[in-house]
Amino acid sequence: MSTISSLLSASWLRSGSLLCVGLDPEPAKFPDRFANDPSLTFEFCRDIIDATKDLVCAFKPQIAYFAAFGGEQQLERTIAHIRAVAPDVPVILDAKRGDIGPTAQQYAKEAFDRYGADAVTVNPYLGYDTIEPFVERGSVFVLCRTSNPGSADLQGLHVEGEPLFLRVARDLTTRFGDSGRLGLVVGATYPAELGEVRQVVGELPLLVPGVGAQGGDADGVGPAMTPGGGVVVNSSRAVLYAARDDGFAQASREVALATRNALADVHRRRPRSAS
Amino acid sequence: MSTISSLLSASWLRSGSLLCVGLDPEPAKFPDRFANDPSLTFEFCRDIIDATKDLVCAFKPQIAYFAAFGGEQQLERTIAHIRAVAPDVPVILDAKRGDIGPTAQQYAKEAFDRYGADAVTVNPYLGYDTIEPFVERGSVFVLCRTSNPGSADLQGLHVEGEPLFLRVARDLTTRFGDSGRLGLVVGATYPAELGEVRQVVGELPLLVPGVGAQGGDADGVGPAMTPGGGVVVNSSRAVLYAARDDGFAQASREVALATRNALADVHRRRPRSAS
Repeated sequence: MSTISSLLSASWLRSGSLLCVGLDPEPAKFPDRFANDPSLTFEFCRDIIDATKDLVCAFKPQIAYFAAFGGEQQLERTIAHIRAVAPDVPVILDAKRGDIGPTAQQYAKEAFDRYGADAVTVNPYLGYDTIEPFVERGSVFVLCRTSNPGSADLQGLHVEGEPLFLRVARDLTTRFGDSGRLGLVVGATYPAELGEVRQVVGELPLLVPGVGAQGGDADGVGPAMTPGGGVVVNSSRAVLYAARDDGFAQASREVALATRNALADVHRRRPRSAS
Repeated sequence: MSTISSLLSASWLRSGSLLCVGLDPEPAKFPDRFANDPSLTFEFCRDIIDATKDLVCAFKPQIAYFAAFGGEQQLERTIAHIRAVAPDVPVILDAKRGDIGPTAQQYAKEAFDRYGADAVTVNPYLGYDTIEPFVERGSVFVLCRTSNPGSADLQGLHVEGEPLFLRVARDLTTRFGDSGRLGLVVGATYPAELGEVRQVVGELPLLVPGVGAQGGDADGVGPAMTPGGGVVVNSSRAVLYAARDDGFAQASREVALATRNALADVHRRRPRSAS
């Protein structure tokens, strides 16, 4: 299996995009033609994928939105559709898994064998040995600094003179940074911290949620960019639910295009030495 | 929905047991009659449940062992079987979920609406606001101190003079302790720390993994016990895979009985004032 670093390097170059579209299907927000029907989740995701696949560096399905109603087969079909129509676009399964060794192995099977994801999001609280079963089979984005208001409760606590999330970034880079299989999740809602994390992780890919509905903007992501790209900037709700009428797919495409262009503009203006 | 505190108080009293059997079905370890066949996962779990249901205060299915091979329906059938043959035994869904608000709501739907669990295990790294969507719908056991070798990487870091896991225990107790919907996960492999956690969480139920295959023993759990019980001591592999021949269910029962009795003996010998 190719590493997430190599897949993303190729994808950034080919697509010219730092945008990731997050697939968080909520039937209550579906366009009118899907009429709040969970059984049409695949069809909704398919239309979004078709409308945005040339504008993204990755897709990120969020498993909870499928699992809540028993939609595992719809998730399998969604990923199969991405493979069919956009075989070069990496798939990041957002699942925030994490458990001790033998159970982590089962979660790794779920992400990589069952769903065929290129990378899965995982939680570091249980310790770095619990990341290993995932890195042995595929790639990970480990939670570092999340975009929600309460993220400071643990991540912002000071440990030996630095916030916990920086300690986590440093420790993970030391342990797994050379594998090509490690990325970190750092929210767009804290631009200064995106820069601090970039300083300690070298060229590692950063998955950056929080742009769009959560209030982050393209400029704020600048400090995390590298000359080759460096960031996978996720937008879910702002793209998925751009309109409810039959022009919804075109509306999603327009939001994705504007976000991709705003990110590309920030990337173009970054000093080349700033990586 | 009844709170986990009230369900467990009744269950400890009725069963006289502090033992929880963890359902971690691994086809490669199944008894010979199930011949390494994932499609017989429900039948294996059913036989274990039938053999141990009068000896436990709770059952804890681990979702990863089902999800790895697409066994969501087998998990649904397993929980339905527990409800049918042991309606008073609480079901703790071990899923280690955790995400920001809207996604946490989806995971809460998965645990409480789809699977009908009484409680679900969750991860605190994202912050305490991410626990709320779970507590609004049901009960949680939040990871505090886990039983794996690497658990000290984050949980053991010192924050303002105490290890992170104690800070987490204290903060969660302050925020959710009065709801009856909060428990914590504290591994049996650290007996002294079980006592430290008990000191800061009052009467909260503690889910204690690590007895049996992971090396913890009944004596080590003593410091976490309360007069009413206080602990849900999980054993998975030692009970599930006690034998491979056709006497496997009886062998599982014997291991469960011995573990229940050892725990009851430790509980009986605790000084009444030590809670």
